[in-house]
Amino acid sequence: MPDTRTVRDYIRTIVDFPHEGILFRDVTTLFADPRGFRIAVDQLLHPSAGLRIDKVAGLEARGFIVGGAMAHQLSVGFVPIRKKGKLPGATISEAYQLEYGEAVMELHDDAIEPGERVLLVDDLLATGGTASAGINLLERLGAEVVGCAFIIDLPELGGRKVLEAKGMEVHALCAFEGL
Amino acid sequence: MPDTRTVRDYIRTIVDFPHEGILFRDVTTLFADPRGFRIAVDQLLHPSAGLRIDKVAGLEARGFIVGGAMAHQLSVGFVPIRKKGKLPGATISEAYQLEYGEAVMELHDDAIEPGERVLLVDDLLATGGTASAGINLLERLGAEVVGCAFIIDLPELGGRKVLEAKGMEVHALCAFEGL
Repeated sequence: MPDTRTVRDYIRTIVDFPHEGILFRDVTTLFADPRGFRIAVDQLLHPSAGLRIDKVAGLEARGFIVGGAMAHQLSVGFVPIRKKGKLPGATISEAYQLEYGEAVMELHDDAIEPGERVLLVDDLLATGGTASAGINLLERLGAEVVGCAFIIDLPELGGRKVLEAKGMEVHALCAFEGL
Repeated sequence: MPDTRTVRDYIRTIVDFPHEGILFRDVTTLFADPRGFRIAVDQLLHPSAGLRIDKVAGLEARGFIVGGAMAHQLSVGFVPIRKKGKLPGATISEAYQLEYGEAVMELHDDAIEPGERVLLVDDLLATGGTASAGINLLERLGAEVVGCAFIIDLPELGGRKVLEAKGMEVHALCAFEGL
């Protein structure tokens, strides 16, 4: 029998993490499985097949795991977009709204050459706040963001609409209803 | 002319990060370069060529970038070892000493099957505290840690001796003197 499991089948749900009432979609079970990890990376890259990609940018921290694999598969460089204070060189920063308060993402100010075509990746698309900050950072350095790839979309949180309103191509491997 | 740059040549040094008097070895310039990233991943995997590897385990957060690429290259699963409170499922934990105080690393308690052969990876070997905690976590779940691979060794901090005293095969792509 061929193995017909999809990416979604490898993701487990943890109840009440990080706090009560939240259903946390856990991709570590996907990453730990050799077939799961391989099909996730392949499918994240699929929409970009035939496009010129100069760099993969990953959002801290789970976006680093798949982003590193994607960059290696494409034989391009990888650029981390990190939480405030983690990158050692000169950075540019973007604040974005959280449920309570705000957070800041940073990018090295020399991480991108103007005109480079960048694929942005993270594990999860929720409200789109982190991804929007990442897109803004990349575009401020002159990147052309050719697409945003996510393993999971949580459609109820509306992130896809936020990114599409910025003119982005959005690609998610699966969706989960229920927060 | 062939490109003769080594992995070390792509790493830049940032003065006074994260605090005054520290020379921070920054691998983001290595990762951002297509050739640099490719030769780093290839060389990290080189000592394991011909060995059976069941999983790659990466230490948060820069170990995720190369570890994801290495797991994908080997067609095996990837397991994250994270700072306290980041993993959503049931975990085991190990505390280790920092310059001031201590820190805790965690691993999902079902991330490894007993007998699995695991390659541990991080960007930097300093005192060996984080890597030792990672090895302990993996071994507590029954893993055989077949090697520890690092991009950079800081020999003055003695991490290699700490890991070799635990019976580990330690592999680093380059060394920097001067902290």
